[in-house]
Amino acid sequence: MRLSQLFARTLREDPAEAEAPSHKLLLRAAFVRKLMAGVYTTMPLGLRTIRKIEAIVREEMDTAGAQELRMPIAIPAEPWQQTGRWDAYGDELFRLRDRHGRDMLLGPTLEEVVTPLVATEFPSYKDLPVNVYQIEWKYRDELRPRFGLLRGREFYMKDAYSFDRDAAGMAESYQVMYDAYLRVFDRCGLDCVIVEADPGTIGGGINHEFMALADVGEDLFVRCENGDYSADTEAATPKIPEAPASGEAAPLTEVETPGAATIDLVATALNVSASQTLKTMLFKSGGETVVVLVPGDREVNERKLSRLYFPAPIERFEEADFTAGGYAKGYVGPQGLPEAITVLADHSVRVGTDWVTGANRTDAHVTGANVDRDFRVDRYEDLVEIREGDRCPIDGGELHIGRSIVVGHIFQLGTKYSEPLASTFLDEDGTAKHYEMGCYGIGLTRIMAAAVEQRHDEHGIVWPKAIAPFQVAVVMANQDIPEVTSHAERIYAELIAQGVEAVLDDRDERAGAKFADADLIGYPVQVTVGKRGIEAGTVDLKLRATGERTTAPLGGAAEAVRALLASAP
Amino acid sequence: MRLSQLFARTLREDPAEAEAPSHKLLLRAAFVRKLMAGVYTTMPLGLRTIRKIEAIVREEMDTAGAQELRMPIAIPAEPWQQTGRWDAYGDELFRLRDRHGRDMLLGPTLEEVVTPLVATEFPSYKDLPVNVYQIEWKYRDELRPRFGLLRGREFYMKDAYSFDRDAAGMAESYQVMYDAYLRVFDRCGLDCVIVEADPGTIGGGINHEFMALADVGEDLFVRCENGDYSADTEAATPKIPEAPASGEAAPLTEVETPGAATIDLVATALNVSASQTLKTMLFKSGGETVVVLVPGDREVNERKLSRLYFPAPIERFEEADFTAGGYAKGYVGPQGLPEAITVLADHSVRVGTDWVTGANRTDAHVTGANVDRDFRVDRYEDLVEIREGDRCPIDGGELHIGRSIVVGHIFQLGTKYSEPLASTFLDEDGTAKHYEMGCYGIGLTRIMAAAVEQRHDEHGIVWPKAIAPFQVAVVMANQDIPEVTSHAERIYAELIAQGVEAVLDDRDERAGAKFADADLIGYPVQVTVGKRGIEAGTVDLKLRATGERTTAPLGGAAEAVRALLASAP
Repeated sequence: MRLSQLFARTLREDPAEAEAPSHKLLLRAAFVRKLMAGVYTTMPLGLRTIRKIEAIVREEMDTAGAQELRMPIAIPAEPWQQTGRWDAYGDELFRLRDRHGRDMLLGPTLEEVVTPLVATEFPSYKDLPVNVYQIEWKYRDELRPRFGLLRGREFYMKDAYSFDRDAAGMAESYQVMYDAYLRVFDRCGLDCVIVEADPGTIGGGINHEFMALADVGEDLFVRCENGDYSADTEAATPKIPEAPASGEAAPLTEVETPGAATIDLVATALNVSASQTLKTMLFKSGGETVVVLVPGDREVNERKLSRLYFPAPIERFEEADFTAGGYAKGYVGPQGLPEAITVLADHSVRVGTDWVTGANRTDAHVTGANVDRDFRVDRYEDLVEIREGDRCPIDGGELHIGRSIVVGHIFQLGTKYSEPLASTFLDEDGTAKHYEMGCYGIGLTRIMAAAVEQRHDEHGIVWPKAIAPFQVAVVMANQDIPEVTSHAERIYAELIAQGVEAVLDDRDERAGAKFADADLIGYPVQVTVGKRGIEAGTVDLKLRATGERTTAPLGGAAEAVRALLASAP
Repeated sequence: MRLSQLFARTLREDPAEAEAPSHKLLLRAAFVRKLMAGVYTTMPLGLRTIRKIEAIVREEMDTAGAQELRMPIAIPAEPWQQTGRWDAYGDELFRLRDRHGRDMLLGPTLEEVVTPLVATEFPSYKDLPVNVYQIEWKYRDELRPRFGLLRGREFYMKDAYSFDRDAAGMAESYQVMYDAYLRVFDRCGLDCVIVEADPGTIGGGINHEFMALADVGEDLFVRCENGDYSADTEAATPKIPEAPASGEAAPLTEVETPGAATIDLVATALNVSASQTLKTMLFKSGGETVVVLVPGDREVNERKLSRLYFPAPIERFEEADFTAGGYAKGYVGPQGLPEAITVLADHSVRVGTDWVTGANRTDAHVTGANVDRDFRVDRYEDLVEIREGDRCPIDGGELHIGRSIVVGHIFQLGTKYSEPLASTFLDEDGTAKHYEMGCYGIGLTRIMAAAVEQRHDEHGIVWPKAIAPFQVAVVMANQDIPEVTSHAERIYAELIAQGVEAVLDDRDERAGAKFADADLIGYPVQVTVGKRGIEAGTVDLKLRATGERTTAPLGGAAEAVRALLASAP
């Protein structure tokens, strides 16, 4: 490709709207252009990179035995109503009606289409297992689309769906995909961690996220310092603490704490650390009251709490609930709670003694509150938000929190979709059974952005060779000199003839602008043909990843480029 | 691919809902499955064929210098409001609103997105010409989706857009695409005619349709028996007839014709041919009355009429208009019309004499009506629907009507979109000018269906080699015999190793079902390994296109298959 013709105008300045490095650089280097919030046109350079990622994903899916098909983007609402997601998705679903008034939606994920399809086509146990996938654009009407391709409203995704006779088969199919995912991200040059994750609105049971490490990542995860455990922060469980050292417990004493209705205020007033206080949180679920106890320096993880009550919703007390129940808001303690109320406590509460907590009377607290003697705990559960320095559940090592971008997510769904969609196969014993399913997503546009987050410098993008839009840029540095243009043209032609994806920078621009653009777009190898080099009988080579510069003889330039490219990451 | 695993269950019976051969066969052979009216899931076999068509289209576009990008499917309404198509498209547009209440649509064509994009990226005459394209799914909410992929509500389309400095440049870009289109359809194995066409709601001026001949085609076209003229029926203009032979004109005579309010009735009542009667049609446009005269045996082509009045709409008289104007409906004639009314007549009216037409009084007609003497014609135009046997405008040869499927349509748009979208470039003389545009569409899903319409027989599809999902089927005819399976496996493995796209029919089915499916799916070459062949040391080969059967030695089967495949159409 000659850059004088390429439909790609680079931008000198960072676009004002862009915060994340990948957003800035993919705009500046003309890989994408914004059409509306969270919706982008993929420009020729961006499309080349996307197609390379797509080819890698397709190869690994095919190798893993999955079969490609393609489902529509605008799909009927009925099966979504059957599974309950038509309502559950809320405003995140792009909804529309056709001319006959039929409800439709733009699919964010396709379980509701693929499950009945497989049930029609492969209705016998003899047909199983089967795994089908597609690579297609998806839609989610994000409240706050941001960071360019990282959180868009339109995104390019590979979604695969496995169908098995039983749970053991599902687990096998899952493992095959897990392994294929490792290969995909490795081939795309991404530095990833794999974590146990929260099932969110899709799952099911076991599921894993493939997280590309990145400072701008919105997805937090924890990793043990010893590398034996990682999980997303929503799902991470810290080590359950040992039983407490037994010692003399202090007496329960009521103290006046006027105005100290928060943990910070009461800790200051009584000169204790926040971790010595006991936070008593009130929730309601199905008309009942649930009390949750955590140390005052910890936060309740409401997702974990929700999972205990799923599918019933559980909500925090509102002002009116405190009033109705006669609770002194800000001064509630677990002492003397009636039996009808469930008292849950985090495991960490078990090891504490002599807690400071509310006295159930405005402007008063108690000190020396001890489990069993002064208050009841019905059940200990994992209920806290994980934090830096918590202990690993496997070996007790220190947990560290990192930021990342989720580029893949795989789920063991079981019969979560086949049941409401009444999708069954006939098993060997003649009975109809629900398919045991798995689903497996990879965000292709996210991979492109995550790769830029991981590989860029102050000059631009540093593409891994496998997904660079072109491998080599041949830069004509002094275009007014006929010898420069003729040698550059020859080297470019040789590279093309040898199957190297090269561009020729033949634009009517000064050399500095060409070098800057080559760095910005991030071709793995640059070769410069200029006046001085011609005089010395050489060309200049540069490896973008390291910045390393070398020269090669004019006549052997193409071979030198190929050797350098072979060494590029 | 082993057919025991392929996600493709063929159907023995024609699906009840399918009328067109391509619809029946693509369903039966498991290329597509219906999700809702006019919306289909593309199954693995279908996707392979679509990808082959896509690769051909992409190669020819790239060769022609067009650059691929990719635009979103759900797009903002604003630019569509600017060009007026938001209203003009009516119910055919799939419309939706995002969570913030912003109007959006699913794009049926992308001029409104690409034009401002090019204006931002390539704002100088030095950047031109440029031609960009994409291959992406499009949406049109057809009132009556039918014939499967032939008239779907979701369809896969290549759309290219050229941008030039001036009309001469546009014409050059147009010609390049025209030539590329010839290559695309030729490589896909389609029998096409190219016709001048009606611009419809997109165009502009000059435009051509590429029509694949097919009995079920909804698009009619005419072709001169001498091959020097073709056009779609909406645009076709018959030869303008010679001046009439002068002769003695009959006197104008009023006759009673009770109840004869139609051409047929009056022709019968007066014992003349319909062609001797003069049809007087009343229209209104912008408050004025327009009278259109055509011979009684011809129909007014209202599209042609509309073009004369464009952009003002022109509509047929309704009941109330007849009453208000005092016209005797069914008995109107052109005699004595006031000057304020425009009288248009088809060229064919010029050559007629002694017309029978309405007497402007209920239950009465006149005979012997002659132009100029008895009534006025303000203007002669081409106003009739073309019909079989009309004369070619070039050489007077006989015109024949054929049915076809439009698989490609190219337009010279001029500034039709760049003007309302205020998309300009800076020309060499420093002035801002509107881009001269062309747009170029190819229906990929339609190509797949049209190929089936053109190439099928009572047993199934006969794919052209270039777009067959697989090239060769290796059929194990007697799967219970170990020698059959081992030879079939070996031949299959050899073909795969030699890069031949082969399937192995290793399903637990009787041989007859396998042969039937191989014919139905339409692999260009079938090779059968069976008991009798093994005993004779041979395999059976069959060329699907001709049905021709041969044998080859067991050991040289792969080579024989490749030779036969090379000869396949």
